[in-house]
Amino acid sequence: MPPAPEEPGHGLALSRADVEAAAARLRGEIVRTPTLRVPALDAIAGARVWIKCECLQRIGAFKARGALHAVGRLDPAVRARGVVTYSSGNHAQAVALAAQRHGISATIAMPEDAPGVKVAGVRALGATIIFAGLTSDDRRLAAEAVVERTGATMVPPFDHPDIIAGQGTATLELLEDVAAAGGRLDALLVPVGGGGLIAGALLACEGAGVRVYSVEPAGCDALARSVAAGERVEVQPGPTLADGLRPVKVGALNLAVIAPRLAGCLLVDDAGIGPALVRLLLHAKVLAEPSGAAPLAPALQRGVPGDPADIGVIVSGGNVEPALVARLVECYGAEA
Amino acid sequence: MPPAPEEPGHGLALSRADVEAAAARLRGEIVRTPTLRVPALDAIAGARVWIKCECLQRIGAFKARGALHAVGRLDPAVRARGVVTYSSGNHAQAVALAAQRHGISATIAMPEDAPGVKVAGVRALGATIIFAGLTSDDRRLAAEAVVERTGATMVPPFDHPDIIAGQGTATLELLEDVAAAGGRLDALLVPVGGGGLIAGALLACEGAGVRVYSVEPAGCDALARSVAAGERVEVQPGPTLADGLRPVKVGALNLAVIAPRLAGCLLVDDAGIGPALVRLLLHAKVLAEPSGAAPLAPALQRGVPGDPADIGVIVSGGNVEPALVARLVECYGAEA
Repeated sequence: MPPAPEEPGHGLALSRADVEAAAARLRGEIVRTPTLRVPALDAIAGARVWIKCECLQRIGAFKARGALHAVGRLDPAVRARGVVTYSSGNHAQAVALAAQRHGISATIAMPEDAPGVKVAGVRALGATIIFAGLTSDDRRLAAEAVVERTGATMVPPFDHPDIIAGQGTATLELLEDVAAAGGRLDALLVPVGGGGLIAGALLACEGAGVRVYSVEPAGCDALARSVAAGERVEVQPGPTLADGLRPVKVGALNLAVIAPRLAGCLLVDDAGIGPALVRLLLHAKVLAEPSGAAPLAPALQRGVPGDPADIGVIVSGGNVEPALVARLVECYGAEA
Repeated sequence: MPPAPEEPGHGLALSRADVEAAAARLRGEIVRTPTLRVPALDAIAGARVWIKCECLQRIGAFKARGALHAVGRLDPAVRARGVVTYSSGNHAQAVALAAQRHGISATIAMPEDAPGVKVAGVRALGATIIFAGLTSDDRRLAAEAVVERTGATMVPPFDHPDIIAGQGTATLELLEDVAAAGGRLDALLVPVGGGGLIAGALLACEGAGVRVYSVEPAGCDALARSVAAGERVEVQPGPTLADGLRPVKVGALNLAVIAPRLAGCLLVDDAGIGPALVRLLLHAKVLAEPSGAAPLAPALQRGVPGDPADIGVIVSGGNVEPALVARLVECYGAEA
């Protein structure tokens, strides 16, 4: 897979049509996850909250969309040499799944502190794991070495048009579900790690009149800083419950897609994420990982600008350590 | 609503067509809940497990189907006088929801020691609560007094054709989802309290060649004993995590529908229910109440007769105390 071009303006070439094409290619390959509405959450948010449950996606996260799309788009002869990636978790399982689907090998560079549940998930899908450092740069270098050695194709976690278009299909479905229920979103909240999901969301929302907001943990706000600076800014990610939202910087293509289209950048902290996870669990009956619950937090805190009546939330995944679930429910369950 | 006739053979007059008619009437009134497939659960069960998520139904349980159907079928002039029921569980919220939908009054007789969260759930839907003693008989008498005084209609929790047909729509959807995915169920596992859900399931499965099994907590096996005796048998329900599966006896019409059609009766204990709840949560990312997780237990324990390749499981609801969720995840999470 060729690296995504860095030149400014490239992102502008992508459009909603690319997301629609990805949706057509992915038909039957992914779960059409449900969009939930829950009166108790609406009451807390003071708005209608439309919850897109990508925790119910294959491998428990939206990442299956981009990886299946990107690997499916490879030339078969190239694909046969295998795929490689670097990931703190869900993208690893997604690439492993896509490799399994096509009967090819996958090698995944993961951080040394990757959650056990995510490591086990990758292994169960038959991929080979190499552990490499703690940052996304460490993992990227390890993965690039495998590409050099084997001729396998790098499937990047976010900085590629096929990944972005694939991730955008989640938002496309959400918009369809809201419309089918006679509604229309005013705002959409999307969690941001490297920016694949939100870039796809922004493309999917073109022409729909939806204000799309990024949601990042405070201290891991690589996108907010990059948007403010007008160029990619590196951060040293601080501690957060949302282990999936800690990349050092967003993708180049991603920023090019995101910057001209984004309505605003929202920040959340653990005191918002924990209760959001527990309320989602107890009221909507779905389990999110902290990164997946993060975008619900601003809605439940009534912190979305412009007093939206209809708020979409993409709950991006549900792969979480059992001990953390128990701790959060114990901590926030009584006041949920 | 006239009481269901007790005479033998009455249940034979109900058929799949009644469930199909209920489904047509309920269109747009209920959530078409998703049917999930999860590789990790399939691996534990040694079979393809098709999980019908009624925990994602309105009010968090399948009971919304029967109540909305039964109240919707009342003559408008009769309905205008309001509805009454007695329940300490999900049926109370379901009747309150149905009354709210039709803009009529609902009176629910609940025990004096009803948990605050359940009282709040019913109140949030606008129903009137009368607290009546501690036993099921106390509540029934209080509800009957309201009927006498106001001319409101009693909506029974399970022993009525409209309730049974409404609950059967969950199974109808499950069968459709499995067929749409190119599958075909060999067995279906359904939890049993009073027998509304399983009677509807058996009707929905007519002609489909599916072996339907009841699942009851050991010590609360009113259906298994009644099937064995050929008539309704009362039990003194023993302790179980599955608080929704503890009626003293099954319904009369229910038994008439169930007995000639049932493939067999399975019993589960807390040591099966707890891990099933936690595995469903961590692998499928959905929260069930213990009564809803109970039917998954025989599948995960490979205890379904006849070595079925495709097993349907109706996860009936997801309304559960937060402290219990935390305790079970702590207890069973590591080995899930």
